[in-house]
Amino acid sequence: TQSKLPGTGTNIFSVMSKLAEEHQAINLSQGFPDYDADPKLIEYVADAMKQGFNQYAPMTGLPALRELISEKMDYLYGASYHPETEITVTAGGTQGIFTALNAYINAGDEVIIFEPAYDCYAPTIKMLGGLVKPYQLAPPNYEIDWEMVKKLFSANTKMIILNSPQNPTGCVLSEKDIKALIKLTKNTDIMILSDEVYEHIIFDGKKHQSVALYPELRERSFIVASFGKLLHTTGWKLGYCLAPEALMKEFRKVHQFNVFSVNTPMQVGIEKYLKDPETYLGLSAYFQQKRDLFRSLLGETKFKLLPCNGSYFQCVSYEHLSDEKDVAMAERLIKEFGVASIPVSAFYIRNTDHHILRFCFAKKQETLEKAVERLVKL
Amino acid sequence: TQSKLPGTGTNIFSVMSKLAEEHQAINLSQGFPDYDADPKLIEYVADAMKQGFNQYAPMTGLPALRELISEKMDYLYGASYHPETEITVTAGGTQGIFTALNAYINAGDEVIIFEPAYDCYAPTIKMLGGLVKPYQLAPPNYEIDWEMVKKLFSANTKMIILNSPQNPTGCVLSEKDIKALIKLTKNTDIMILSDEVYEHIIFDGKKHQSVALYPELRERSFIVASFGKLLHTTGWKLGYCLAPEALMKEFRKVHQFNVFSVNTPMQVGIEKYLKDPETYLGLSAYFQQKRDLFRSLLGETKFKLLPCNGSYFQCVSYEHLSDEKDVAMAERLIKEFGVASIPVSAFYIRNTDHHILRFCFAKKQETLEKAVERLVKL
Ligand SMILES: CSCCC(=O)C(=O)O
Ligand SMILES: CSCCC(=O)C(=O)O
Repeated sequence: TQSKLPGTGTNIFSVMSKLAEEHQAINLSQGFPDYDADPKLIEYVADAMKQGFNQYAPMTGLPALRELISEKMDYLYGASYHPETEITVTAGGTQGIFTALNAYINAGDEVIIFEPAYDCYAPTIKMLGGLVKPYQLAPPNYEIDWEMVKKLFSANTKMIILNSPQNPTGCVLSEKDIKALIKLTKNTDIMILSDEVYEHIIFDGKKHQSVALYPELRERSFIVASFGKLLHTTGWKLGYCLAPEALMKEFRKVHQFNVFSVNTPMQVGIEKYLKDPETYLGLSAYFQQKRDLFRSLLGETKFKLLPCNGSYFQCVSYEHLSDEKDVAMAERLIKEFGVASIPVSAFYIRNTDHHILRFCFAKKQETLEKAVERLVKL
Repeated sequence: TQSKLPGTGTNIFSVMSKLAEEHQAINLSQGFPDYDADPKLIEYVADAMKQGFNQYAPMTGLPALRELISEKMDYLYGASYHPETEITVTAGGTQGIFTALNAYINAGDEVIIFEPAYDCYAPTIKMLGGLVKPYQLAPPNYEIDWEMVKKLFSANTKMIILNSPQNPTGCVLSEKDIKALIKLTKNTDIMILSDEVYEHIIFDGKKHQSVALYPELRERSFIVASFGKLLHTTGWKLGYCLAPEALMKEFRKVHQFNVFSVNTPMQVGIEKYLKDPETYLGLSAYFQQKRDLFRSLLGETKFKLLPCNGSYFQCVSYEHLSDEKDVAMAERLIKEFGVASIPVSAFYIRNTDHHILRFCFAKKQETLEKAVERLVKL
């Protein structure tokens, strides 16, 4: 029997986190906080379990939680998503992405992705018999030339995957980008899968350009969101997917046979917690403070800082220091300096190496300080 | 764009549970307990959250939990599964099934299933371009004639899905069944997907015939198990999958891009709880008492009881009472008598209707009593 994913090895996040552990390095590789979630939120989930919310949730998610997501979309983006037919709670953002792709990608379909790209898109597309059409963005600004994107279009172009704020680059799409995309895809039925898991982490007063803001895109778009990023609970594996009814109908068919439904007490607890928008409205300011601190600390190292407009990742270039491969460099940083990062080549299908490393700054101030203390020695 | 699952509507569990709610019927349809999980287990999960276990678990599952599962398999079946390479924690049994099928089923592959069959197998196979080869078991005993199974074999037979104890029939495979299967598939590379989510609910001293007991099958088998059924927490959506290393390697490639990893604090809590085998060794006795009670109560109704050797489902026939379709009958039971069940025709691809209904007896004694009080009126 042949493998459907012959090229897939252990993913870079597992490899780096494990190596970090072995060498007791400070782990700035995989994207997760090293501080606690709000005790109030934890209490709400504990209460839900004690109150007996421990059996199957409805397949599409807890009605009250879908209602709340609907209100949140209206409040933030003036977008109306119907809780009954257009919102589904998922077992994390990744499951939303996998499920949307499974619902729509057939053999021969082409999907455009922007590289560096989060590492689950390409293998999932390939597994489904689809063709990945990568558009490589150029550091340090990773800007999109939409005329170049157009050159990737063919009769088989089925979907474009957006990810803003982007993992790993921290780049965000501007209104101009979205307008260009709308113009480009007008009168086509190219679908959009918009991975917006970092929607609440965007800096310097920039406004998150959710596709929900643009009716012309919305009608053929999936939006994937993450409670893990919103609530500092990446290990709870809760998120949601939004789409117009026709698309959501197909999504749910796959969802139902994939996971059937999603963790009940956590849905109950999250719903109670998120009733208060204060719980997430300060997220950008919270992480901007961390970004600013981390960038100013990194100023003392030999690394060159790339821009960071959103997400909780900061990329740095060491191109001027060494022509070592980025995987080797990342391993050396763990072994010799005790700091774990992610080599950005892992976010390209063809392992393009620009000598860039990604650090996660969703960490306590002291963690960031200690990490940079070590990195200055390089 | 065409649907990959054109025939899929809202699943029968959602339909019946919703109708039950609308008519305030006693819900014996969808399979879940109406009593509380052990407060100790809930406390352990709450503790895990409070202790900060809220970030990504390893992709394959918490090492300590995999270790424990390995010990459990050894203890129960004398089977050795290596925690590092042969065990993966999943977001419920369904996700395990979906992921195993995704890893191995290609266009044109044939998969044999035994009908009535749990409703996720067939659509998932079809979605992957596979062909479902249903073998229809005959009520009331639903026995397998292995010579007839053999007639379904072709050069394209890729997999056989087993489910013992079986949902919805409560039938269990005997040692003789497994021996026949071994003989039939000897010198083939037909894979087995063994859905053993009800492994701990088996009656009258019968021994669960896990494929883990049979090295000849094990080497080409996936086993799917469920913590939800084991711990009366179907809404936590936790389970696991077992397979020899080569198969598990492919499973994990899909798993990683499907859900990446599974709820951390629940893994931590379950691991602590399950250290004591007493927590699950009494499960068969516990449910046998419920089965016996429910069967004896049902004796007062006009229904004919089918055998029930395992699982928490009891099937009844009303063939001698009416030739109403089973879906209509189930709806009428909700609307006129206030009791929800599942029409067994939902477990067949071609809606075969033997006038049989399935009741879930994972319910408090008073719930079962109240339900039958209503059913005797029929
Ligand atoms: C799903 S593991 C990776 C977490 C993450 O988003 C990242 O580190 O890029
Ligand atoms: C996943 S919903 C169905 C639960 C169950 O196992 C059943 O009722 O058959």
